[in-house]
Amino acid sequence: MVVVMAPEATEADVDAVVSQVETAGGDAFVSRGVNRTIVGLVGDVRQFGALNLRGMRGVSDVLRVSVPYKLVSRENHPNRSVVRVGGVPIGPGTMTLIAGPCAVETPEQTLAAAQMAKAAGATLLRGGAFKPRTSPYAFPGLGEAGLRILADVRAETGLPIVTEVVDAGDVALVASYADMLQIGTRNAQNFTLLQAAGEAGRPVMLKRGMSGTIDEWLMAAEYVAQRGNLDIVLCERGIRTFEKATRNTLDISAVPVAQRLSHLPVIVDPSHSGGRRDLVLPLTRAAIAVGADGVIIDVHPHPETALCDGPQALVDGDLRELAKIVRDLPGIVGRSLTVAEPAPNPAGTVPV
Amino acid sequence: MVVVMAPEATEADVDAVVSQVETAGGDAFVSRGVNRTIVGLVGDVRQFGALNLRGMRGVSDVLRVSVPYKLVSRENHPNRSVVRVGGVPIGPGTMTLIAGPCAVETPEQTLAAAQMAKAAGATLLRGGAFKPRTSPYAFPGLGEAGLRILADVRAETGLPIVTEVVDAGDVALVASYADMLQIGTRNAQNFTLLQAAGEAGRPVMLKRGMSGTIDEWLMAAEYVAQRGNLDIVLCERGIRTFEKATRNTLDISAVPVAQRLSHLPVIVDPSHSGGRRDLVLPLTRAAIAVGADGVIIDVHPHPETALCDGPQALVDGDLRELAKIVRDLPGIVGRSLTVAEPAPNPAGTVPV
Amino acid sequence: MVVVMAPEATEADVDAVVSQVETAGGDAFVSRGVNRTIVGLVGDVRQFGALNLRGMRGVSDVLRVSVPYKLVSRENHPNRSVVRVGGVPIGPGTMTLIAGPCAVETPEQTLAAAQMAKAAGATLLRGGAFKPRTSPYAFPGLGEAGLRILADVRAETGLPIVTEVVDAGDVALVASYADMLQIGTRNAQNFTLLQAAGEAGRPVMLKRGMSGTIDEWLMAAEYVAQRGNLDIVLCERGIRTFEKATRNTLDISAVPVAQRLSHLPVIVDPSHSGGRRDLVLPLTRAAIAVGADGVIIDVHPHPETALCDGPQALVDGDLRELAKIVRDLPGIVGRSLTVAEPAPNPAGTVPV
Amino acid sequence: MVVVMAPEATEADVDAVVSQVETAGGDAFVSRGVNRTIVGLVGDVRQFGALNLRGMRGVSDVLRVSVPYKLVSRENHPNRSVVRVGGVPIGPGTMTLIAGPCAVETPEQTLAAAQMAKAAGATLLRGGAFKPRTSPYAFPGLGEAGLRILADVRAETGLPIVTEVVDAGDVALVASYADMLQIGTRNAQNFTLLQAAGEAGRPVMLKRGMSGTIDEWLMAAEYVAQRGNLDIVLCERGIRTFEKATRNTLDISAVPVAQRLSHLPVIVDPSHSGGRRDLVLPLTRAAIAVGADGVIIDVHPHPETALCDGPQALVDGDLRELAKIVRDLPGIVGRSLTVAEPAPNPAGTVPV
Repeated sequence: MVVVMAPEATEADVDAVVSQVETAGGDAFVSRGVNRTIVGLVGDVRQFGALNLRGMRGVSDVLRVSVPYKLVSRENHPNRSVVRVGGVPIGPGTMTLIAGPCAVETPEQTLAAAQMAKAAGATLLRGGAFKPRTSPYAFPGLGEAGLRILADVRAETGLPIVTEVVDAGDVALVASYADMLQIGTRNAQNFTLLQAAGEAGRPVMLKRGMSGTIDEWLMAAEYVAQRGNLDIVLCERGIRTFEKATRNTLDISAVPVAQRLSHLPVIVDPSHSGGRRDLVLPLTRAAIAVGADGVIIDVHPHPETALCDGPQALVDGDLRELAKIVRDLPGIVGRSLTVAEPAPNPAGTVPV
Repeated sequence: MVVVMAPEATEADVDAVVSQVETAGGDAFVSRGVNRTIVGLVGDVRQFGALNLRGMRGVSDVLRVSVPYKLVSRENHPNRSVVRVGGVPIGPGTMTLIAGPCAVETPEQTLAAAQMAKAAGATLLRGGAFKPRTSPYAFPGLGEAGLRILADVRAETGLPIVTEVVDAGDVALVASYADMLQIGTRNAQNFTLLQAAGEAGRPVMLKRGMSGTIDEWLMAAEYVAQRGNLDIVLCERGIRTFEKATRNTLDISAVPVAQRLSHLPVIVDPSHSGGRRDLVLPLTRAAIAVGADGVIIDVHPHPETALCDGPQALVDGDLRELAKIVRDLPGIVGRSLTVAEPAPNPAGTVPV
Repeated sequence: MVVVMAPEATEADVDAVVSQVETAGGDAFVSRGVNRTIVGLVGDVRQFGALNLRGMRGVSDVLRVSVPYKLVSRENHPNRSVVRVGGVPIGPGTMTLIAGPCAVETPEQTLAAAQMAKAAGATLLRGGAFKPRTSPYAFPGLGEAGLRILADVRAETGLPIVTEVVDAGDVALVASYADMLQIGTRNAQNFTLLQAAGEAGRPVMLKRGMSGTIDEWLMAAEYVAQRGNLDIVLCERGIRTFEKATRNTLDISAVPVAQRLSHLPVIVDPSHSGGRRDLVLPLTRAAIAVGADGVIIDVHPHPETALCDGPQALVDGDLRELAKIVRDLPGIVGRSLTVAEPAPNPAGTVPV
Repeated sequence: MVVVMAPEATEADVDAVVSQVETAGGDAFVSRGVNRTIVGLVGDVRQFGALNLRGMRGVSDVLRVSVPYKLVSRENHPNRSVVRVGGVPIGPGTMTLIAGPCAVETPEQTLAAAQMAKAAGATLLRGGAFKPRTSPYAFPGLGEAGLRILADVRAETGLPIVTEVVDAGDVALVASYADMLQIGTRNAQNFTLLQAAGEAGRPVMLKRGMSGTIDEWLMAAEYVAQRGNLDIVLCERGIRTFEKATRNTLDISAVPVAQRLSHLPVIVDPSHSGGRRDLVLPLTRAAIAVGADGVIIDVHPHPETALCDGPQALVDGDLRELAKIVRDLPGIVGRSLTVAEPAPNPAGTVPV
């Protein structure tokens, strides 16, 4: 960290900063300029986190020069990680397609969507049983009944399950069914939930907060990692901006940026980013081309009657095009589409 | 609602929309233009919420013309509400000062801050025992020990307590100590927590999400209200924008806008909006002048050693100026500073 | 357009709206709901533009249901356009690479950059002689001397020139050298400049304003088109958001959205979007994959001494990779890289 | 400035940075940490502006620790300035009301609006003759005919004129009529216009760009100042955010922030910020209370027929309330409403 002193700071103010840093076990280097003095701090960011340097007299700014997350950072873990979900790898070298309905509605709808997903090349099934909805009058999901449907469809299709959990109190229940826990954008800073997910013994897919910086996203991952779980997949799903032509603005640059800062896999959700069916395929192509480790896509057998996010679900004709994209495009960026393999450690049977 | 058909929509597409609306128990009025047909929907927004009109063939857009929240809306409740917290009113006619430390650290620090707050004119004490922190390495609060300190300071000073709850599982515990539950910006769409708070038998202060629209904020309040609790105070605390000179951008216009849309009281947090001590007093003046029903302010006896948000806490000299502002300015907007009165129903003794 | 009346609007208020619309030559359809009445307007948006419906008594909102731009809209011009620049096509079917230095500094640097660009597959040369700089202390460009250098390099390499114009008073001068006029993000709503560019007899590349909506961008294009010039290429270059890891946030979705709304070609600037060299190639791949009609990229023989935007300029090693991308990737989206062909009407010799 | 080296930077990389800085006439102080080395630069920011330190090998970041504007900064000019417009002061101690129609339409409308403005306490008249409009189909203003109307109304009412100029080529013409030149939000980075305004011999009101940071706003002012004109008034008019309940989001904090960074007066435009009549008075109160040096407000005798921004213009009843606010509120912040005084040097008669 670098402490920038105000022009009017006295020698005593500078000395006080140096002394605080040294008391915390760090070293301080003072550079005196014409207008300002700066103090460089050397040591561990965790040491300095408890110091309130910004509150000290004569301090005008405190600039961070290293990352505030350690476990998920690439600084001490240069190789990119592979996260396995029910035996399916997500990470460098492959491009994994996750697909399924936004919300689980009925056994028939879920099975049909899973079969559509599989036919398009998906090796993981998404589907929500607990849905965070902006309006209390919207469909909140089927809860445990939805989890049971997902488990049945997994048995039928062989596709491991990714499903959302919205409250720390539900983590054990959801983890007893799911192969991967999804934490949604509205819970990106629900720290109790992040910690509970870190202790559940399942891989976690962590969506970026809709107004979360990349740093905050990695800090949220650090919360999960701190509880001993490094099987985390980051998911870019669009951020909130002034532009209203799309539901969110897909921050495609966040993929290479996060991959450079963190060793964790980074995937993209083209369905929720745009919120429009006609954008899903172009954004899927962009995601694969930019180097995403996977994409997660809404499909629905009958979008016009979907209880959630129907406007963005892909339908039959689109799926043939999707199958072609995920088959042909990954090769251009040195990857291959992840294909199904027998899970060595079938999920759903592990006690949690 | 208004359904806008695409230029290429057929008569059959229009008929399908009309038929869906009528099946849901509403009425549909069709206006045929040169390029486009629009369908006006008449009925209750809750009827139409389950319809996936956007997903129907030939539909290009669905525009909402009435508000999606009912219980907190002013449409059916034209008079603005007063919420009483441990006997202290927040609402039209008064301007209530809530102050205290960002985080409860020690009994001494909390008592000193409470006395500073009271001397400045505060009638409610704020203080966090459960703190949501962006970094897992930052001080997370004292938990229940902090709640006990707050209760002791309440006994000593007579100031009812406002304190944050961050997880649905903690609501009963926090409600057993607090006079008002605070829901923070990072939990503005933690719907499980909102519902739990709605059932806790305590007034709720609901901060706006840092990227939440005013509509989403009122929808979050609707979640609380739906559980039978209309004692809700909205708190504007700054939104996330491109401008980085301040920690957040105080959306001062949100105060009159929310007061016009909802009957609930609206207060402002000038401390967290700006994140800078030198902005707290100017923003407090702006908040009172714009017509806020209250302000909530960080004070700390020794900000330079504060474990949380020290840079924005007011200190002694500022407090005399604050006292003057809250005494003199409310009169300009036809309000008076709320003064302490004996709580008819002292909090902390009610079984919850 | 749809006029939404307030709940308290009277019959007389509704009649007044209807009468205003009819006076302007349009038709009005009234739908009376339980809480609100809406009035649908039928006619040309240009007729209603002068009406101040929002200002009328009893009106709570006015919603637009068709686009406010006509000449650049795809509604009346369903086929996507090809714009030719010195004989080089930009449009559907092809993917055009435009490359060159951010700023023209010397003849040697410009020629070297042009040769790098050409070797990578570029068929158009970019380079700024008039530079809008945020700081008055930054390098403002060489002005006409820079234009002469560009003309010399065009003669040497055969690459037509794209260069920026920043003031209406300079349009004739710049157009006498340039094959295409570039309007930068800071001038995206400099309407005098847009109109002057529309009259200059040269194709125009119109960058999106850094905080411009897609609608505003197309309205800016409409200003150019209105002066009789439909040879306009839209350029997405990143928008301003809260995320600071990148200089701007590339709005990759804007490409398919703008292509759906307008018949004009849409290209992407990966260099200025990210502002970081390490992001240029990934974002170029994303741009091509999403379906952009071209990309415009900064290259520089010695970025470490560049007078402008050195941190984002590609250098030698990157260019071999770029050449591979623009050769291999367009085929995946049914396009081929634009190749040089003799200009039938060599620019720089046409009187303007 | 502080240069942060990457963890993998070599000694040679550090030496190269030091050598570049010294060649530019500055001094460099090197602090070597465990993970990173930082280099503190001492000297004038203008010296280092031309260095491309970010582009050098081994450099991971360059952090600015002092402001990039000199002439408008408070660092070398601690006392806040007063700008006089036709004899009317804007600055500390006073609160100046500027009011008038958004656009000049007719002599009658302009005179009526000016009389309304004066009755409410205004000492300066606003009114647009050249209007930048998002749509080419909207009313563009009357041009010079509008300026003549303004001059006639000035003669009749004694109110000096503030009016917008949108192109460098019009500056001399507008300056020959106006007492103060207004630069609008869409031209906040039209540097040619800023420079021309700096040479016109008239005070300049500089609106903040709708997506401009406070730093960029002050840099724009520096462009004007550099041409020898320090009579600049900054005007906060709302920024673009995700919130759409208001036309823009008034950044009320920008007033004290800009006043702390710059010695120039800072005023607020409550009309364009909110874009809604019902917000103008609350936002005016907030602006005065936060410490603005003035406010600029749209008034119109018949807003329902206004050719521009009718929905936000104040009408008769509001004006009595406005008069009360500007009379009573400034005293609370130690200011008094600016009152008219004979202009010692009447504008409109000075050759330019």
